[in-house]
Amino acid sequence: MRRVAIAGVGFTKVKEHWGLALKDLFAEAALKAFDDAGTGEIDGLYVSNMLAAPLQGQLQLGALMANALGKSGVPAATVEAASASGGVAFHEGVKAVASGFCDCVLVGGVEKMSDGLPEQVSAAMAMAEDQEYTSYTGVTKIGMNALPHRLYMERFGASAEDVAMFAVRSHENAVGSPHAQYPFKASLDRVVASPMQADPIHMLECAGVGDGAAAVMLMPAEKVKGSVEVAATTVATDSYYLSGRKDILTYGAVNDAAERAYKLAGLTTADVDLVEVHDDTSINGVLSIEDLGFAEKGKGASYVAGGNTIRGAELPTNTFGGLKARGNPLGATGLYQIGEVVLQLQGRAGDCQIEEAKVGLAQSMGGLGSTCAVTILRRD
Amino acid sequence: MRRVAIAGVGFTKVKEHWGLALKDLFAEAALKAFDDAGTGEIDGLYVSNMLAAPLQGQLQLGALMANALGKSGVPAATVEAASASGGVAFHEGVKAVASGFCDCVLVGGVEKMSDGLPEQVSAAMAMAEDQEYTSYTGVTKIGMNALPHRLYMERFGASAEDVAMFAVRSHENAVGSPHAQYPFKASLDRVVASPMQADPIHMLECAGVGDGAAAVMLMPAEKVKGSVEVAATTVATDSYYLSGRKDILTYGAVNDAAERAYKLAGLTTADVDLVEVHDDTSINGVLSIEDLGFAEKGKGASYVAGGNTIRGAELPTNTFGGLKARGNPLGATGLYQIGEVVLQLQGRAGDCQIEEAKVGLAQSMGGLGSTCAVTILRRD
Repeated sequence: MRRVAIAGVGFTKVKEHWGLALKDLFAEAALKAFDDAGTGEIDGLYVSNMLAAPLQGQLQLGALMANALGKSGVPAATVEAASASGGVAFHEGVKAVASGFCDCVLVGGVEKMSDGLPEQVSAAMAMAEDQEYTSYTGVTKIGMNALPHRLYMERFGASAEDVAMFAVRSHENAVGSPHAQYPFKASLDRVVASPMQADPIHMLECAGVGDGAAAVMLMPAEKVKGSVEVAATTVATDSYYLSGRKDILTYGAVNDAAERAYKLAGLTTADVDLVEVHDDTSINGVLSIEDLGFAEKGKGASYVAGGNTIRGAELPTNTFGGLKARGNPLGATGLYQIGEVVLQLQGRAGDCQIEEAKVGLAQSMGGLGSTCAVTILRRD
Repeated sequence: MRRVAIAGVGFTKVKEHWGLALKDLFAEAALKAFDDAGTGEIDGLYVSNMLAAPLQGQLQLGALMANALGKSGVPAATVEAASASGGVAFHEGVKAVASGFCDCVLVGGVEKMSDGLPEQVSAAMAMAEDQEYTSYTGVTKIGMNALPHRLYMERFGASAEDVAMFAVRSHENAVGSPHAQYPFKASLDRVVASPMQADPIHMLECAGVGDGAAAVMLMPAEKVKGSVEVAATTVATDSYYLSGRKDILTYGAVNDAAERAYKLAGLTTADVDLVEVHDDTSINGVLSIEDLGFAEKGKGASYVAGGNTIRGAELPTNTFGGLKARGNPLGATGLYQIGEVVLQLQGRAGDCQIEEAKVGLAQSMGGLGSTCAVTILRRD
């Protein structure tokens, strides 16, 4: 198996892109990644996306995006795993290069959520839960998240403010991020005073709706000297249903993907200099920090509230604002995370730069923790 | 790169499965593939599907199907490339085993089309064309196919009957196929007397709407002695638009994928003992035979009409009935094709068995030829 490195990254700003079509957004990020890599000569293309079918009436994005890039001919596929799509597509891209099937792969994620009315977006997002068992009850994604959030508060005696601090920290880190949707601070008072979405989750604890695209170029490591190498990429699943989990407050897929990734990379949590975690809600950020092994179960909220995850602290987390403040264009999110880790490791993070980072980890989830992708990247 | 073999296959019958949910259908095929392989110990799962989002309101089929199989935990992803989804997912599964990421992968495709009203199915199938350029005009998939069909007749002087013979041949071959949707003969008179769908295409020249699932198990070749090996798997794309093609009557993606596949396998068309081609319409069957190199351009219709593609003839084609008569559950179709080739090469094709087959080829297309997957399988 060949070692794989990241040769280039490209992002669009996350916002409501009323003037750009799905393929325009994708092309903007992809062409930036080509520029960054110094080549557009790809022999493989993976497109990650979740909601183009329900929101744009569009399928077969692989060939569509190849065409949009002037790359018709190239082998292309769409990979979907709800909001873990980007991380899972990255995993497939790494296999393509590691196996020798491809020598230069573009993995690009795109999502255009503002095309849908709010109720359409909510219904489409609920497609990541079982339509015959969970979604048909009418529960929303945020409604699902409220269950572990409430239990976390009860079991560990955490207050609403303790958990909400995850959102406050993500917003702090977004300041200075050029591609963040909400690059400003949000005080704890403001977060907990925002409208209740699904008790006990306040609106400002949830990632918003946004459009964006992110892309990374993958090549064999020996061809990209001085770059960032893929130390590990893992995907794991868990029961599709909260009721089927061993413990509602432990995302087994995160545990499993992380454990295998540390083992593959030959690293421990102590070696990790920064992480990007899936904080689509504040409770998911807290649980992810715990299930990745950075805080004991039940201690994640106080670890974050204590300031350990801001830039410059012990474990810089979501250094460009995370899903909450950078934004969460679902199918692209995992690739924003990976690209952001690359920029940090290469000292190209601008106003968001942290010091001396050699190892970074990105974690994304699809459904309510039914799929998890973990990527560990290492600077040469 | 490790050599990869097929350790087991499983199909459901293609029909209107009113009593089974999407995951029931998938599980039936997958469990048959486990039985056939003598193991269900998978460490990777690829699900191919096209229309679950528009027709079932369901996404994230990877974790859903892992759960349905009692395999929660396993890395899983959904791969989509319209009706080439099965072939493209197979390609990804082979990479996973070839690279060493996985030791036993299940690639399963599923589609449940009868859940949709006819107009919903037509609209959903049109998502494989560009919604902003082609689909919004209201053209259907069959309407698109009528363009090359008409041009073929004009340029090469072919009659409606010449092209329609592809459907007649597929129906002949379906007789005796245990999993075919329409396992009976259809006379030429009946085909050309059937209602016009989109001039010059008659209803009985089109694959119907059906539900089904097909699955294959992949393992390193050294662990599956006496089995069928993957000699080559390729994916190619072409312009998303007929107007962007060099020639409307040549599917460049088929040409390209086939050429690379022959080269990878070290074989020529003369070595191929049977083929499964993408005859979702009769004209696509004809053009596929030509673009794979089995007949000269413009001679495909007469080659087929002349009887060269029935079981027992020079080039047994669509030996279980093809998309037309076996049925075309879109996301599963490519895996039916691959599984059928395996059964032929292993002498397990029952009443559909041909003689002395060592090498077989399966070809599937997504969109109107904008994606093509070619698989060449070889018996040890």
